[in-house]
Amino acid sequence: MSITVVGSVAFDAVKTPFGERERMLGGAATHFALAASFFDEVHVVGRVGADFGDEDLGVLATRGTRIGDVERVPDGKTFFWAGEYGWDLNSRDTLDTQLNVFEDFQPRLSAPSRDCDVLFLANIQPELQLSVLAQCGQLQFVAMDSMNLWIDIARDALVEVIRRVDCVMLNDAELRQLTNRPSIVAAARDVLAMGPSLVVAKQGEYGAALITEDHFFALPAYPLETVVDPTGAGDTFAGGFVGHLARSLDKPLTQPVVRLAMAYGTALASYNVEEFGTERVERLTAGEVDVRVAELRAITQFEHSPAPLETS
Amino acid sequence: MSITVVGSVAFDAVKTPFGERERMLGGAATHFALAASFFDEVHVVGRVGADFGDEDLGVLATRGTRIGDVERVPDGKTFFWAGEYGWDLNSRDTLDTQLNVFEDFQPRLSAPSRDCDVLFLANIQPELQLSVLAQCGQLQFVAMDSMNLWIDIARDALVEVIRRVDCVMLNDAELRQLTNRPSIVAAARDVLAMGPSLVVAKQGEYGAALITEDHFFALPAYPLETVVDPTGAGDTFAGGFVGHLARSLDKPLTQPVVRLAMAYGTALASYNVEEFGTERVERLTAGEVDVRVAELRAITQFEHSPAPLETS
Repeated sequence: MSITVVGSVAFDAVKTPFGERERMLGGAATHFALAASFFDEVHVVGRVGADFGDEDLGVLATRGTRIGDVERVPDGKTFFWAGEYGWDLNSRDTLDTQLNVFEDFQPRLSAPSRDCDVLFLANIQPELQLSVLAQCGQLQFVAMDSMNLWIDIARDALVEVIRRVDCVMLNDAELRQLTNRPSIVAAARDVLAMGPSLVVAKQGEYGAALITEDHFFALPAYPLETVVDPTGAGDTFAGGFVGHLARSLDKPLTQPVVRLAMAYGTALASYNVEEFGTERVERLTAGEVDVRVAELRAITQFEHSPAPLETS
Repeated sequence: MSITVVGSVAFDAVKTPFGERERMLGGAATHFALAASFFDEVHVVGRVGADFGDEDLGVLATRGTRIGDVERVPDGKTFFWAGEYGWDLNSRDTLDTQLNVFEDFQPRLSAPSRDCDVLFLANIQPELQLSVLAQCGQLQFVAMDSMNLWIDIARDALVEVIRRVDCVMLNDAELRQLTNRPSIVAAARDVLAMGPSLVVAKQGEYGAALITEDHFFALPAYPLETVVDPTGAGDTFAGGFVGHLARSLDKPLTQPVVRLAMAYGTALASYNVEEFGTERVERLTAGEVDVRVAELRAITQFEHSPAPLETS
């Protein structure tokens, strides 16, 4: 199996209550690839500027990720985002957005990227997501992300993408906005009715929920005393989630498989937020990921015993 | 064992996207008692007005709850609160608050209420919570709630209450405000350092977390397609949580016991929000509660198998 991710590769400037970075490697495809690379061969499709150094490319290539489809524009500048998080890290203000070379990004997939088994469409214009789908061969599994902007201004194209994927990953507010449903369960059912078989509702510090036609599963975020930088948590989660599914596609995607994928996503996201940008996940080990998955299991299990209420 | 709850008994006027009620039975002690009455003998200590009818008292007495310490003031009016919830039920505006007879509430516990084994101090002035503690005999377990107002204007008395209880139940925002810690884990540790052995962080639609010195446990809310009225969910949760602990006090409060108590609280709260006010929990059965506890287990369990990431 191999996984292709199409999305932003960027520099971020971030200020949180625990410190700041003036320029760090970021972008949805970057965070996704760093997480998914634990599970499978990952191909990144993106566009950067001349300011994107060999060292940055080296980080992107961590754990064997293929970067042949990361186009470096000689006279361009890399997508830049600057933001500042509030005291409890649950709010953030965007201070600056410079699309730069990302503004004219037209994903063109080489043969190895096209021939992937699994595709992750990170948050980009729905029309570009459709063009990627049109380039790919027979895909076994496709997951996607999006954002409020596209729900506002490109709803028809977005719904067309949703119809063609297996898994939609959005945060609670986006699911509500997309469906006009106040309940996440009802919103997810509306999305499932469009075609996908899996909906992941991302809930920030509260974790994530997974909704299928027959099942609901919720997993809290891993409890941390200090969250240093939440940037990229959602894409890191997606990398762990899609990564575990990719390595499991030789069998049907049963509930145990998709639930463990949620745990891998959650574990990886928890490491991501412990340090700035890609700093922690770059040097993370597979053993550390497994330790946290086991801890997630320990903090969520309970027994319905001894006596039920009715007979007590 | 018997449980005493001291707190508000009220009438609420509520408007939600799914309907409205001009006057319905409410109040923290009411919701707590209706839930806790599944587990043990409950004594309610409160104060109401002449407008509080025998039918209202009858609801309060559901499943054998003792209402001898509910003082009915002949020339007074019952505490009245009116509120309106936003579209997704996560925000609410208070439209009216009339304390009425509750303004001069000075809890005086009769012998049966004083001789309880378990006490729940619902959200009232910390000074009144201290006066209740002073009246009670040897208590086996005390839990408390509070609110942002008391953190603002009666912090010293509130901390004094916290020092004397076994369990603090606050929402995330209150825990952060009380401790000035952005992380709920760090905030809970600060509260544990004041004396309690259990902290419950209430998280609304996302469920609740339980923090002790050695353990963390999180349980999502039960997923509902429609939440009709969230009023009283926190106190209903407290009733199920404290109720299960009360019936388990013949043994040490181990993690399996307190985790199952979280599930009982969550199950009861989920029923509470399915209809207005006390309507659903009044006619709820023990069997229905157990069904939902089993469902909560089903939607949170996962296995860390087959192969860990490291060896795959």
